[in-house]
Amino acid sequence: MVYIGVDLGGTNIAVGLVSEEGKILHKDSVPTLLERGPEPVIRDMGTLSLKVIKDAGYSVDDVKAIGVGVPGLANADGVVIFCPNLKWHMVPLRKIMQEIINKPVFIDNDATVAALAESVAGASAGVPNSVFLTLGTGVGGGIVINHKIYSGSHGVGSELGHMSVKYDGRQCTCGAYGCWEQYSSATALIRNAKEAIEGHPESLILAEAGGDVEKIDARCVIDASRKGDPIACKIYGEYIHYLAVGIVNIINSIDPEVIAIGGGVSNAGEYLMEPLREEVKKLIFYKDLPYARIELATLKNDAGIIGSAMLGK
Amino acid sequence: MVYIGVDLGGTNIAVGLVSEEGKILHKDSVPTLLERGPEPVIRDMGTLSLKVIKDAGYSVDDVKAIGVGVPGLANADGVVIFCPNLKWHMVPLRKIMQEIINKPVFIDNDATVAALAESVAGASAGVPNSVFLTLGTGVGGGIVINHKIYSGSHGVGSELGHMSVKYDGRQCTCGAYGCWEQYSSATALIRNAKEAIEGHPESLILAEAGGDVEKIDARCVIDASRKGDPIACKIYGEYIHYLAVGIVNIINSIDPEVIAIGGGVSNAGEYLMEPLREEVKKLIFYKDLPYARIELATLKNDAGIIGSAMLGK
Repeated sequence: MVYIGVDLGGTNIAVGLVSEEGKILHKDSVPTLLERGPEPVIRDMGTLSLKVIKDAGYSVDDVKAIGVGVPGLANADGVVIFCPNLKWHMVPLRKIMQEIINKPVFIDNDATVAALAESVAGASAGVPNSVFLTLGTGVGGGIVINHKIYSGSHGVGSELGHMSVKYDGRQCTCGAYGCWEQYSSATALIRNAKEAIEGHPESLILAEAGGDVEKIDARCVIDASRKGDPIACKIYGEYIHYLAVGIVNIINSIDPEVIAIGGGVSNAGEYLMEPLREEVKKLIFYKDLPYARIELATLKNDAGIIGSAMLGK
Repeated sequence: MVYIGVDLGGTNIAVGLVSEEGKILHKDSVPTLLERGPEPVIRDMGTLSLKVIKDAGYSVDDVKAIGVGVPGLANADGVVIFCPNLKWHMVPLRKIMQEIINKPVFIDNDATVAALAESVAGASAGVPNSVFLTLGTGVGGGIVINHKIYSGSHGVGSELGHMSVKYDGRQCTCGAYGCWEQYSSATALIRNAKEAIEGHPESLILAEAGGDVEKIDARCVIDASRKGDPIACKIYGEYIHYLAVGIVNIINSIDPEVIAIGGGVSNAGEYLMEPLREEVKKLIFYKDLPYARIELATLKNDAGIIGSAMLGK
């Protein structure tokens, strides 16, 4: 049997046909065109799934299940409760999808499905317990326990970006204070850079962005830091410290075998991982015992398709 | 079949014979007398187990397994890696115990076994995913996932007291900064009270301790707060706020059905639980979704015996 994995993003819908082993056999994508509202978007997800099956030389009968990764939260009835960036609220995704392909439809959070993908075919392949973190607009997290996604008792487990690491810190969009993503997301890195260069227009961060403050992204800060720019080095160092604090919190609570790091900031590669591992080592509780390996996620943009597909396995 | 549960503390060894359902059939205790070193203590654990079996009218053949809850960490080989308060390091507990009773011996952390006890026969009975917290000298934690103890991949999972809730906060005995137990243990409450009354000898906290600073305990602060003492109210309010921050971190990561609260501070009962639930409610991420019930642990001193016994089930 094969599986359909759908990665629903704000810009594109990506669909792949995936083997039992988590290998993509064929994939395709179309623009999401969010402004149409949910129903036509979901219909396109179904139509593209049929096309991918056909183009790969398979039939609908070969497909065991469909999985969909959404940038939000879904319930056990296949209803998308909430996708802030898509502005979706209580959308009966499974029902609409099944009008086009009548297969079991599984829906989960995009960071959660990426965690499953990495655990099946990526950085944490083969280990029972792992955590995946995506450092992007926010800090997304997914937990795999005993080779299965762990979403908690109310489906909100693994909101790791909303662990508070500073009880009196910055207020988060969630209403609480000092949430980890206020310090360890790409957004936080960019915000801190913008604030810091206000008094320091000579910083290389600005040069990396072609002189346009609005164009500063995580790469600008990281590349300026590589070149030794003092402002960038300071901001990036603090960023890594916060990242380490949250990772040690995960080690002290969930104690996985692997913590896989993905998302935009992870493009820094070893320039992120090396100092991060050093910081984690300093903060670890049981210094004599083995603890989680911290690894770069390997599946990149395919994680959404593979992980969604594996939901139905 | 029946089970032996051993609760190893710094002052007493408590042993109980426990039914399949987690009910104590008979129990007894002897002083630990730590200064003798580990081996005689473990031999006493074995001898007392034999006595408890006999006194309860059972034979050794009726016993399926022995469980031991230790104030520290053990490995899969039945070796106690580390018990800071007992000053035990790499003690072959299982081996010595089996010289006295040759049954399977399971060893786990005392907070972890209490979590299992509450999940079998206490505040979280019947739900698959729960967390137990003990607010005492430190903040101990135990995680139960799918009705089983979850200790992580290296046995250090559920060190919830060492989640940092203030990245630049007080340094903890573990070496890291701002660990939850630096704010939410009974020790932290007492420390804050002692610091606060330095400039305020009129505080009722001191009166509750009979005028002796060294006798201030959690009860003194809580009772002074009940009576409206402004210093006590402030300290207790802050204490509850920190407790809520850590609990919300657990909700956002592990999302259990029940969080059961035990340990000395929990003797405050609803005077703790009511404001705690209010604080948690303010900080919760998904305000419209159900989340963990926060309950008083119910098994008190029996939790160690029951949970240890259930390790072998």
